[in-house]
Amino acid sequence: MKTQKSVTVFAPATVANVAVGFDILGFAIDAVGDTVTVSWNDQAEVIIEPLDGIENAGSISTIASKNTAGLPLIKMLADHRPGFGLKVKITKGIPLGSGMGGSAASAVGAVVAANILLGTNLSREQLLTYALEGEAVASGSKHSDNIAPCLYGGLTLTRPGDEPDVISIPYPSELYCVLVHPSMVLNTKDARAVLKKEITLKSHSEQAARLAAFITGCCTSDFKLIQKGLEDILIEPARAPLIPGFYEVKKAAMGAGVLGCSISGAGPSVFAFTQNLEIANRAKEAMILAFQRSGSLAAQGWISPIRKKGATQP
Amino acid sequence: MKTQKSVTVFAPATVANVAVGFDILGFAIDAVGDTVTVSWNDQAEVIIEPLDGIENAGSISTIASKNTAGLPLIKMLADHRPGFGLKVKITKGIPLGSGMGGSAASAVGAVVAANILLGTNLSREQLLTYALEGEAVASGSKHSDNIAPCLYGGLTLTRPGDEPDVISIPYPSELYCVLVHPSMVLNTKDARAVLKKEITLKSHSEQAARLAAFITGCCTSDFKLIQKGLEDILIEPARAPLIPGFYEVKKAAMGAGVLGCSISGAGPSVFAFTQNLEIANRAKEAMILAFQRSGSLAAQGWISPIRKKGATQP
Repeated sequence: MKTQKSVTVFAPATVANVAVGFDILGFAIDAVGDTVTVSWNDQAEVIIEPLDGIENAGSISTIASKNTAGLPLIKMLADHRPGFGLKVKITKGIPLGSGMGGSAASAVGAVVAANILLGTNLSREQLLTYALEGEAVASGSKHSDNIAPCLYGGLTLTRPGDEPDVISIPYPSELYCVLVHPSMVLNTKDARAVLKKEITLKSHSEQAARLAAFITGCCTSDFKLIQKGLEDILIEPARAPLIPGFYEVKKAAMGAGVLGCSISGAGPSVFAFTQNLEIANRAKEAMILAFQRSGSLAAQGWISPIRKKGATQP
Repeated sequence: MKTQKSVTVFAPATVANVAVGFDILGFAIDAVGDTVTVSWNDQAEVIIEPLDGIENAGSISTIASKNTAGLPLIKMLADHRPGFGLKVKITKGIPLGSGMGGSAASAVGAVVAANILLGTNLSREQLLTYALEGEAVASGSKHSDNIAPCLYGGLTLTRPGDEPDVISIPYPSELYCVLVHPSMVLNTKDARAVLKKEITLKSHSEQAARLAAFITGCCTSDFKLIQKGLEDILIEPARAPLIPGFYEVKKAAMGAGVLGCSISGAGPSVFAFTQNLEIANRAKEAMILAFQRSGSLAAQGWISPIRKKGATQP
């Protein structure tokens, strides 16, 4: 063992929910992510190095058992390499509390890097289980809608619950994502608190019809169906008030010709899908401008195809 | 006009809901349906001939404005051929109150036949609107989940509501349907009354994940995904107690190796999907036997691929 000193992995940002798949859909993007370096620690413990030079870094615990990247590694070591220790250095490309799957990226990056460094050769299904432990630290439950696409890449479907079964959904390669992040933090727990625990059966069917149209559109590369499907009548209306300027940003994106636009994960970031790069560029500028004008928020944006691969060595 | 004396159309039975698409999914089958003959009536009115030789025929009104096939024709004539009249003769292949889309078949058969006889050349979208008027007579609302597959054929997705937009979902041609009808009547209104108007957000996501798996499986001919998806956690548990022996019938079907089994429409008929004809035959026999043994109900069954075409002249 110890053939390498350290392993560095790029773990992509992910967009969960995807308008019509609350807690079940997510996709990875190429343009932004976390970089996680795992190296040996001479002590038989996991050490998390403090995050450097980013806002709100103090909100992230460096106690390994309370850290998104730390807890999965503690469990991996206990199960597969007892007596060894690891150091974890995370360079956050994903803003904290942005709804872009930052905690998932740190957890997934850590387990993928550790799997290589430790030579454990665990399957993706096994890594998924460990990474979910980290997500539970961050959000209070083992949601897989960011973890799955971060680890597998592509557009993924998972069932809510502890032992998700990851299904990769085909999608047209011409699909571009615009992701815009306003400079504010929205805590996932707060974003969950505004959701009603019950919905009407009628609204279930309404949303399910949109989901089915979206999935059919993705599988058959039918952009009209993707467009029809991308409308969230359940979650977006409850969360939009938490994001200053949201409806103006969405209007700006729709005006630029995107297929659909909604909240990324728990927000405050907003994503849109487009059919080509030109519309994506136009939409990104319009969305950033709308956040400034209507939400009084500075914003940054990315454009990316759906990332085919999950977290990997760069 | 009046180049033909009458037009006869076969309108297929349809399975709505399809386990995971309550009020939005449906498919047509080849094996059973209604035969609707529309002929000229010298008086400027619509006449419905009484149903012959079937059980519970008295429950079907022969007053045209209160009849599933009659109301659509009254509206078609008023809009496109005022001053003309029609006679409608329906030979029911679909048992009444069976959950096999009988009222939809009568409505769709009538409008398709009338469209040919009257030479109106209306589009399927226009015929859909008229046929929905008939469904509203039968079930109290304009549900399109039986009407759409009966008119379009195949596996269809519609949004709940008055002006459905029909989406045809691809499916593997090897998919067989087993449909078993126990000799009892279940009124759609009664089957709706047992449903809770509200569901938890969690159960929405759970059911939506199954729907997405089923749709992905259909689009990509992945029978494992179809199997994973075909599980109804929302509607079936509420309606199963209305169907004597349901769980034993389902167990018998699953034991025979079907991909999934649930209630057809509002019931009491039960459908299953299989990947080949041999399993379909075994499942049909097992399900009929289970209805007899556990539900004390005689039952009849059909095996059919999904029917590609909607209602047509035979």
